[in-house]
Amino acid sequence: MSYRTLAAVDWGTSSLRAALLDASGEVLEERAFPRGILSVELGGFAPLFDALFGDWIRPEGSLCLIAGMAGSRQGWLEAPYCPCPTGFADLGRRLAWIEPGRIAVVPGLSLNKEGVPDVMRGEETQVFGALQLLGLADARLVLPGTHSKWVTVSEHRITDFSTWMTGEFYALLRQHSILARTMPDSDSEAAHDDAAFGQGVAHALHGQGLLHTAFSTRTLALFNQMAADRLPSYLSGLVIGEELKSQTLRQGDAVVVMGAESLTVRYAQALAQLGVSVQRVGAGATWRGLRAIADNLPSLAYPAITRQNTTL
Amino acid sequence: MSYRTLAAVDWGTSSLRAALLDASGEVLEERAFPRGILSVELGGFAPLFDALFGDWIRPEGSLCLIAGMAGSRQGWLEAPYCPCPTGFADLGRRLAWIEPGRIAVVPGLSLNKEGVPDVMRGEETQVFGALQLLGLADARLVLPGTHSKWVTVSEHRITDFSTWMTGEFYALLRQHSILARTMPDSDSEAAHDDAAFGQGVAHALHGQGLLHTAFSTRTLALFNQMAADRLPSYLSGLVIGEELKSQTLRQGDAVVVMGAESLTVRYAQALAQLGVSVQRVGAGATWRGLRAIADNLPSLAYPAITRQNTTL
Repeated sequence: MSYRTLAAVDWGTSSLRAALLDASGEVLEERAFPRGILSVELGGFAPLFDALFGDWIRPEGSLCLIAGMAGSRQGWLEAPYCPCPTGFADLGRRLAWIEPGRIAVVPGLSLNKEGVPDVMRGEETQVFGALQLLGLADARLVLPGTHSKWVTVSEHRITDFSTWMTGEFYALLRQHSILARTMPDSDSEAAHDDAAFGQGVAHALHGQGLLHTAFSTRTLALFNQMAADRLPSYLSGLVIGEELKSQTLRQGDAVVVMGAESLTVRYAQALAQLGVSVQRVGAGATWRGLRAIADNLPSLAYPAITRQNTTL
Repeated sequence: MSYRTLAAVDWGTSSLRAALLDASGEVLEERAFPRGILSVELGGFAPLFDALFGDWIRPEGSLCLIAGMAGSRQGWLEAPYCPCPTGFADLGRRLAWIEPGRIAVVPGLSLNKEGVPDVMRGEETQVFGALQLLGLADARLVLPGTHSKWVTVSEHRITDFSTWMTGEFYALLRQHSILARTMPDSDSEAAHDDAAFGQGVAHALHGQGLLHTAFSTRTLALFNQMAADRLPSYLSGLVIGEELKSQTLRQGDAVVVMGAESLTVRYAQALAQLGVSVQRVGAGATWRGLRAIADNLPSLAYPAITRQNTTL
């Protein structure tokens, strides 16, 4: 299925980002709004989208693909989860079309291990984009965040993934736990302290588990063994170290780390402590992933609206 | 050092409980007040204590021992931590006397593992009381709570212990995390569900760690695999299971579980899933522990105020 322009949209829980690409993948324009799906009322998605991106999607030959929580039950149109393992073409076949041939939502992925499900929405697109950017067919990736995802890719397909509530645990402990009492106010977060962070990672890697190691944030303060403004970095090291400890990583392994720089820097530091080599991928991965899905869309699925005979 | 009556006081962060014992250990009276140390202003401890217990501590021959956070920096009188390993006599020698020979605070314990401290205040007294009640010289004990303590006793001495923020993690996840969104309001906690709790314990025992397993509370709800009112029990099983998983317990081991019945029942169920046998000890342990400390007080330390020659 060919297109003249691709509106690539990443519509998450708390933010909305988009890029307009031409058929060669060149970014013509980028837009971002603080309009995550939680800020949109039922029935409000279509008019909001038209107001923000009407000029991108109205012209003949435009295609729009939306990744992220916009495809959840609380979003614009529910796109049922695609079961793992999944490749590009599977995603393309399972798009949820808002306007057939013009606007679609990319499905998230699900898997089931011993009766317990896991899910992602949006990260699958970032992962496929990273594979394209790096020219990889097999990889192990981590997407740090409120809920970090660890993803295994084999022969261009996502074969396994898991969710880690690392960022949320950090925020809970930082803001609401007894540990917050010996730290500076969380509104005035001090500069990140590499050494304290590394100490937290090391303690987590050799420790008995976060339920126990977290308490050291309190006792180190109690015995004046760590200054208050270093404790948040130490705690960050504890939770990220705990996440890494659970990943059966071996010295010499390679991991792709994707996401915001402030987080990927920390993960790279922690992975280095384990002797794991790191490739970092920045914010362009979602656009690249949506483009790859668009370029691999099966024409046969929507023959009436393919653009192959237009003169655009 | 002999005494006619012992006022045994457990003064914690959020509660104040006390018992008046005679010299044979008989409980003559019990009192409890919602006056944990956090509710007492600086300088307010002495007058409050006098108002609540003056009739117990004024008579000739009375002795008063206070365990718990009253001995912390935020308490009545700081009793410096006693380093592990510690026995009865060590605690007796290190009492912090408010009124020499009459009112003293029992010190907490500290230890240091690879540069990281751990502490307890109050639990040491409960542990020594339990040993007396059960007639044990060696034991492994757990005191579940906001911050659970695991304690190893060898030849009547506490040789090792560790703190687990299990209760606090549960409360944070139950009240402030994304998991709370799919659960009933935490003010209207449903009845404990043994089966859901057991399922949580089992998932934690075989899982990759709480940062990951906690997310199953969300996905089980998302896929309608568990009813909302069962999720809190499931989550409770996850965090308690995670605590137990870290304890290097083997089938056939025996553990003493101490504390409030609502919690000791859950720990007993979870330990049974591991094939560990359980002895439960109730609320009397603190009184028994304070009595044991009193009965083992060295007379020589305070010769001027020993009561051995009184005619009481």
